[in-house]
Amino acid sequence: MTPIDHAARVTDVTTEVGDATLVVANLTDLRWLTGFETSNGWAVVRHGELFVGTDGRYGDKARAETEGTGATVIVEQQAGALAARRSELAGDVAPDRTIIERRRRVKDAAEIERIEAAAACADAALAEVEPMLAEEPTELEVRAELEYRMVRHGADDRSYPTIVATGPDHGARPHHGAVRRRIVEGDTVIIDVGALVDGYHSDMTRSWVVGDASPEQRATYQLVATAQRAGLEAVGPGASSRAVDAACRDLFEQAGCLDDYVHGTGHGVGLDIHEPPFHNQSSDLTLEPGMVVTVEPGLYRGGFGGFRIEDLVLVTASGHRVLTHSPKRELN
Amino acid sequence: MTPIDHAARVTDVTTEVGDATLVVANLTDLRWLTGFETSNGWAVVRHGELFVGTDGRYGDKARAETEGTGATVIVEQQAGALAARRSELAGDVAPDRTIIERRRRVKDAAEIERIEAAAACADAALAEVEPMLAEEPTELEVRAELEYRMVRHGADDRSYPTIVATGPDHGARPHHGAVRRRIVEGDTVIIDVGALVDGYHSDMTRSWVVGDASPEQRATYQLVATAQRAGLEAVGPGASSRAVDAACRDLFEQAGCLDDYVHGTGHGVGLDIHEPPFHNQSSDLTLEPGMVVTVEPGLYRGGFGGFRIEDLVLVTASGHRVLTHSPKRELN
Repeated sequence: MTPIDHAARVTDVTTEVGDATLVVANLTDLRWLTGFETSNGWAVVRHGELFVGTDGRYGDKARAETEGTGATVIVEQQAGALAARRSELAGDVAPDRTIIERRRRVKDAAEIERIEAAAACADAALAEVEPMLAEEPTELEVRAELEYRMVRHGADDRSYPTIVATGPDHGARPHHGAVRRRIVEGDTVIIDVGALVDGYHSDMTRSWVVGDASPEQRATYQLVATAQRAGLEAVGPGASSRAVDAACRDLFEQAGCLDDYVHGTGHGVGLDIHEPPFHNQSSDLTLEPGMVVTVEPGLYRGGFGGFRIEDLVLVTASGHRVLTHSPKRELN
Repeated sequence: MTPIDHAARVTDVTTEVGDATLVVANLTDLRWLTGFETSNGWAVVRHGELFVGTDGRYGDKARAETEGTGATVIVEQQAGALAARRSELAGDVAPDRTIIERRRRVKDAAEIERIEAAAACADAALAEVEPMLAEEPTELEVRAELEYRMVRHGADDRSYPTIVATGPDHGARPHHGAVRRRIVEGDTVIIDVGALVDGYHSDMTRSWVVGDASPEQRATYQLVATAQRAGLEAVGPGASSRAVDAACRDLFEQAGCLDDYVHGTGHGVGLDIHEPPFHNQSSDLTLEPGMVVTVEPGLYRGGFGGFRIEDLVLVTASGHRVLTHSPKRELN
């Protein structure tokens, strides 16, 4: 894979910061900027220099991962001493996410390569596991197979705990995890699965009915599928994140089932699984080429179950490119 | 498994709160008290009543999981409205973890049953996967097999991303994850693995050398093993958490390798993988029967690698009982 050019990021951010002082305390921002992945650390950028602080557990890792960025690595065993070192460098300047968060929204080619690779791992795992749905597995069995197979296909890990939400109760909960419930004929099935490759996430959801669909299942699924296509069509450079949400939401409202739509229409994906822009009614962000976002409308009803369809989409100069390729089944 | 008696917990906490108002905002505390597992929610206890608030994604789940506790479930779609409902109930009373954190430290029989079951899943998976170490797998392959097999053996999930830290560089980093590094003869190997059963975690670490150990490897491993036995022996009712840490730390100091011991000696385990008591030099907690804690000394050297040995231990009325049963290898 193309290496991530952290040195270039450091140069760009250092230039933007200029004579000011930037304190980076968000750990994902720290990783984006320096390449250093940790559970405890910070960076200070000032006067053209980069300082990275961490504790004794991560000293070697910090030096190895920031190599080539020109970072000065500071290691202190005690939390108080580490905080004091940051104060020496940055005074009482508070951490600020603005500069890096804005830069993180637009992915470069190396980042897109990783996100696409992650999406491909989830596609490959789902293709192998989908036939299991007819064999009455438990939700947990489906999840374990998906997560294991994503790694076998090249992922470093799952992106998030895979959601397998099935049947009239679990299926009606958009963020139900996966339990020992057996999946049986007539169930609605939601599988929301993503992989992690070199820190970058993918995110995808597909839905099914096991066996023959009822008229209500068929109608509800088709409505979600129609809304999802409308949401995808709304993704392009210059479109507002709110418009992507509205494309789905308006269709559900016209169909009289807006109460069954209990979440936003999507979010950015990168080093975090959920990051700006967020497609919802209060978003004020405009989509730009290089942004990678989800489009994921769904409908959920207690006693019925639910459906969600989600793709991961790259905003391009001329429109968009879908990164998740698992087929969307027609209900029969 | 024995059901967790959330109704009894609610009664106990409600009685302790009395005429005061308790706001529960920590999500693990919320789950411990009410049985409701969520990514967004709170509880208010006042005047003998329990209120649980959450958003539209989790309304059904909240009602289902708090059944029998007498909770009044409040669902608001918008974050502002949900916060307003909490203010109506609790005024400006701030969240306070004291009461529940203290109660969470001591596990009841149903909790111990889950933690033991989780530990057994990790033991079973490790027994199957350990022979792979001789076959030059990557760290990531070992991790994927362990996590998959824990679920096959009855776990709901891994407790945390399994650590497989091998060889002279990764092995020297106590919290190294697992990457595509191939494990080869002569490597030190640290595997830190736990399972999740009904929300409860287990935690265990074993160490190896692949093939024949060098004199330095043998001596270092034996020192860690001796320290770990000393730490275990220090665990019992009335012992201080600091004394458990000192039992290991003093041995390393005598051996002149305290600089290679870059973390604390252990922590409580329950609904959180890391919770009080923490065994370190500043701990002021005393161990009580029903606490479940780790004992996990380790030594790490850049260019050499590292070893850590960790057991999960229940404090009993008369001493302690080890819950993790994977054999500790003698180095040959």
